[in-house]
Amino acid sequence: MQKLSIRTNRRCDIIDITTAIKNYLVEIKAHTGLLSVHCPHTTAGITINENADPDVRKDLLKYLGQAVPENDGYAHSEGNSDAHIKSTLVNCSQILIVEDGKLMLGQWQGVFFMEFDGPREREVWLKYLPDGKR
Amino acid sequence: MQKLSIRTNRRCDIIDITTAIKNYLVEIKAHTGLLSVHCPHTTAGITINENADPDVRKDLLKYLGQAVPENDGYAHSEGNSDAHIKSTLVNCSQILIVEDGKLMLGQWQGVFFMEFDGPREREVWLKYLPDGKR
Amino acid sequence: MQKLSIRTNRRCDIIDITTAIKNYLVEIKAHTGLLSVHCPHTTAGITINENADPDVRKDLLKYLGQAVPENDGYAHSEGNSDAHIKSTLVNCSQILIVEDGKLMLGQWQGVFFMEFDGPREREVWLKYLPDGKR
Repeated sequence: MQKLSIRTNRRCDIIDITTAIKNYLVEIKAHTGLLSVHCPHTTAGITINENADPDVRKDLLKYLGQAVPENDGYAHSEGNSDAHIKSTLVNCSQILIVEDGKLMLGQWQGVFFMEFDGPREREVWLKYLPDGKR
Repeated sequence: MQKLSIRTNRRCDIIDITTAIKNYLVEIKAHTGLLSVHCPHTTAGITINENADPDVRKDLLKYLGQAVPENDGYAHSEGNSDAHIKSTLVNCSQILIVEDGKLMLGQWQGVFFMEFDGPREREVWLKYLPDGKR
Repeated sequence: MQKLSIRTNRRCDIIDITTAIKNYLVEIKAHTGLLSVHCPHTTAGITINENADPDVRKDLLKYLGQAVPENDGYAHSEGNSDAHIKSTLVNCSQILIVEDGKLMLGQWQGVFFMEFDGPREREVWLKYLPDGKR
């Protein structure tokens, strides 16, 4: 398992980690299998979405901010319940297909770390499971 | 990896792909492992939900349409930010258990392709990872 | 594959299943691989979130109850469309990394069964896929 280090810059942020993932697959000489991209934090998540127009990411963060208000009479005293809720809605991991050494993403897909309670130093865990038949 | 072709018929649509997945597992003589069902598009997703009453799917699409309005002052100029947001909320893939050649789903579970910016020709990617111990 | 039995106590409930999952990994002498935690029901789900302050879980259930009302002119006649919608939003499964026999979760992460149409007797399916290279 590999740990990536990420620095987020705002309370809510979205960081493209696609290249870091591809570099890891090259480094370990991955061939064919599945890759887990896991966020070990409970106020952040991992999503796959458009890698072209940055406005898509902006709209996604804005939507989540409106749908899950920062203050809404939450019981949790740390004041970041919205971030925990967003983490469950977005999911804390993604599983990706690796085929012939290539990360199988659609033409417009990138992998993103979503921060909901930053700025912070964060980690992403990568675990590659090769096809056992090879 | 296998690519399924799917034709969606409306802007927002939901297509049962359970049988196509089961047929693929028979074709490759899958025994025991995990199966990734991956949508390579950023304005669609894959979900698992009830396969019996079609009204459940109708209610799900209607809910998403209300929760994520098509027009809401989005920055993304293509006019389909709602579809990208729904894709993140629903998720672009599902991982399923395969045991003794059988797709392990609960009695009422089916696997569905969710279209949020159709009608279009779409793909679903299937990747089976067998248990390496066998 | 292992089936866990779970008893939920309210219509909407959240049950910590982390210890049961860890016990299963010990029992099967898991070493390194991926673990699927699958909910075979269409009105429940599996999430990973904070395992410390129970108020986080309370806030999460409350949020989902407000975001997806129990009655909202749904077409599905069984009266539990809200539960089906929540199941898609939360997701019916999680894939976890297992490394050197250890369930790889962040310091504050636990695995939770989310009930949206209880109280009921429920199941969670666990399937471990070992690293084929070992």
